[in-house]
Amino acid sequence: MKRVRVELLCAGSELLRGQVNTHLARISLRLAAAGLALGREASLPDDQDALAAEIRSALGRCDALIVCGGLGPTFDDLTREAAASALGRSLAYHPAIFKRIRRRFAELALSVPAENKRQAFVLAGAEVLANEVGAAPGQMLTLPARRPGGLPRTLVLLPGPYRELSPMLEGGVLPRLKKLYAAKARTMHLVWHLAGIPESRADERLKAPVARAGPESSFMILSYPGQVDFHAYLRAGSDRRAREIMRRVRRRVLAAVGRFVLWEGDLPLEAVVGRQLLARRLTLAVAESCTGGMIGARLTDVPGSSAYFRGGVVAYSDDLKKGLLGVDPARLARHGAVSEECCREMAEGVRRASGSSVGLSATGIAGPSGGTRAKPVGLVFIGVSGPGPGTKVHALRLSGEREFIRTRATTRALQLLLDSVRLARPRLVCYHDSSDDNKGKQSRNHKEIREASR
Amino acid sequence: MKRVRVELLCAGSELLRGQVNTHLARISLRLAAAGLALGREASLPDDQDALAAEIRSALGRCDALIVCGGLGPTFDDLTREAAASALGRSLAYHPAIFKRIRRRFAELALSVPAENKRQAFVLAGAEVLANEVGAAPGQMLTLPARRPGGLPRTLVLLPGPYRELSPMLEGGVLPRLKKLYAAKARTMHLVWHLAGIPESRADERLKAPVARAGPESSFMILSYPGQVDFHAYLRAGSDRRAREIMRRVRRRVLAAVGRFVLWEGDLPLEAVVGRQLLARRLTLAVAESCTGGMIGARLTDVPGSSAYFRGGVVAYSDDLKKGLLGVDPARLARHGAVSEECCREMAEGVRRASGSSVGLSATGIAGPSGGTRAKPVGLVFIGVSGPGPGTKVHALRLSGEREFIRTRATTRALQLLLDSVRLARPRLVCYHDSSDDNKGKQSRNHKEIREASR
Repeated sequence: MKRVRVELLCAGSELLRGQVNTHLARISLRLAAAGLALGREASLPDDQDALAAEIRSALGRCDALIVCGGLGPTFDDLTREAAASALGRSLAYHPAIFKRIRRRFAELALSVPAENKRQAFVLAGAEVLANEVGAAPGQMLTLPARRPGGLPRTLVLLPGPYRELSPMLEGGVLPRLKKLYAAKARTMHLVWHLAGIPESRADERLKAPVARAGPESSFMILSYPGQVDFHAYLRAGSDRRAREIMRRVRRRVLAAVGRFVLWEGDLPLEAVVGRQLLARRLTLAVAESCTGGMIGARLTDVPGSSAYFRGGVVAYSDDLKKGLLGVDPARLARHGAVSEECCREMAEGVRRASGSSVGLSATGIAGPSGGTRAKPVGLVFIGVSGPGPGTKVHALRLSGEREFIRTRATTRALQLLLDSVRLARPRLVCYHDSSDDNKGKQSRNHKEIREASR
Repeated sequence: MKRVRVELLCAGSELLRGQVNTHLARISLRLAAAGLALGREASLPDDQDALAAEIRSALGRCDALIVCGGLGPTFDDLTREAAASALGRSLAYHPAIFKRIRRRFAELALSVPAENKRQAFVLAGAEVLANEVGAAPGQMLTLPARRPGGLPRTLVLLPGPYRELSPMLEGGVLPRLKKLYAAKARTMHLVWHLAGIPESRADERLKAPVARAGPESSFMILSYPGQVDFHAYLRAGSDRRAREIMRRVRRRVLAAVGRFVLWEGDLPLEAVVGRQLLARRLTLAVAESCTGGMIGARLTDVPGSSAYFRGGVVAYSDDLKKGLLGVDPARLARHGAVSEECCREMAEGVRRASGSSVGLSATGIAGPSGGTRAKPVGLVFIGVSGPGPGTKVHALRLSGEREFIRTRATTRALQLLLDSVRLARPRLVCYHDSSDDNKGKQSRNHKEIREASR
């Protein structure tokens, strides 16, 4: 199958001066779900010549180029002009667009600054993508193929703010790109989340079995604090073939690293924990010391988490450990706040105080100061009380900076919680299937996979 | 002054498949602090030919190219080979590097996978940058100038993980780049953190006064949930000149948007809050509902925060609001958990329960479900009880997605806390001065600024 090449160009000086660019990650995931791989990204400052040069060279090598940003009204918004100059096309004034912008401003009881008139200029021949949220419309232009008999090329200009860009991407751009460049491809994405195995070891074990899985598949290992994710992207000419490859890949992955697989599928760890708690009708409370609220924050990232998460205590000071969690003062004095004993009492205390079925606790030394020879920076205890009788306490010896230690302790706490509350390793594959928007079909595939894995 | 061109190339298929790239933002800020502007960034997949082509073309237009990632041991780590092919140089095996890697693994009671041997190969002529944290060393290579009489070029290869890359950048790379390309420049970076003004309005007010500040200065507005940051980068041939421009810029900024300036300088909001609490010998506790622990997590991001932060209660369920915070059940039933009344009682309750001088609370509807006509998604109450008698409750009406609402509520809570605990708007400029590493000198400049601003 011919590889279609899509590229992304982000325009904005702020991207080269400290503003985190989340567009790349978000857009690439949405392209992947549509069966399209992003082949390259570049970020450039608001410089018309540099932008024009990049647009010209990108259109010389790719099938579709998406440009984000630089469609605003201010002096440093230069994408329109850069694209026109790259293509040798003129910009045409669309009175209807300006009328719309004027109406938007009037609704907000504002007069339109003269600068906004620039937003009504569109590349000659381009389709206008209406902006439901802001002023600047997007533009989509079809260009002839690079070579005779090739596919036509597409140039897309989108505004910078993600909430403006996103509806245009979903409503106009992706359906078109999919139709033009990925109509016949069936793509699937699978991910396995591993813990307890270093990235290089996972790579070593997975390389040989998966590299032979077929030419249409590609793989990626991502490493996070305390977790390694293995992604497989499968692409085939038919559903049947895609499912076939997927089953084979999955079999091989589980054979190679099955015992390290914490869960499979698209959901983040905190959502998997939540589903498991819901399924078992369990409730949860947390007692956090060194993580200072991070465990609660991650658990409540999940919409609907109030169905199982009751809350808890951020017991950063010893007084709160005693006062709100009922940690025994004598024992606290003897063993210290960073101890197995205190961690156990914190988990049991928050479980009792909240009337939850499970109590989760974390206490440790995040650093950079506060460490001793006996209790060095990075020593963290995680306690899980329940479900049922008994409390388990795990000691972690982490290394790195404060932020890394806290993030890793949070992830490990959720992993240990998952181990305690689930009945069995899940056999569930939640994969991303771009081949059809029909949910029924997706769940049919889904079921098939489950059966195949029994 | 001649503009030096630095470019960044990020290698890794994961960057084009959903992994958020924070390297660009972090590295660009550190370059800026060293007086160097990043002119372009590109992200490429793990494809040796594509990487080699990009390295070749980047070295054809820039003075320094920093390549991140692809130095690991696995089959998809191809940066070494790509750079060698781009330059037409060989890779030389360094037994000392492999010995070091073997020792690292031995300390962890692991055998070295054969793959790791690849990490001991270095571009002929390159300087090795030791890795204090992981296995892969970095490499720095000096190349002849593009044109006769020009500056020599620099190619830097760094490992992908930021905690490995960061010490190399700080210890070896930035000092060298600064010496080579920015030796005579005095650079300063100032930042003002604004709240209560939209980005476009800040832009409108700041554009005219600061655009006339001088040719050596450049500016940037970054917008975050609930906050707008205005950055000024000043560059001059002498200290005296740099200070002169800085004072002028600062005067103009404060004249234009002074009443929206929450604080000035490099520290993050949570650290500014912490300093203020410390200076006034106040202690703090938080009661969080919709933010689920995010406020505590941000406060405890600051090392040493245990000196003023006692902890608090994540009161996600009504039971915990009543049980641990003493919210009156009848009032809770009448007004609901998302109400001014409940928010007030939460702030007062956590202050009382923890014996802190200040209690901060947040309760709201983060969505996506749970909203009603009277209490829509995005309605959030923030309560500040103390210092001294009295509790203030602020109602926010936020819009956007769950994550955005929670982040914005957290930031706003810390801003309102800062407003309550500080005695006066700080007149303190904590700027970044790259011109000298001498701290004495820096604080002398610093003092001068304070006097100038009286």
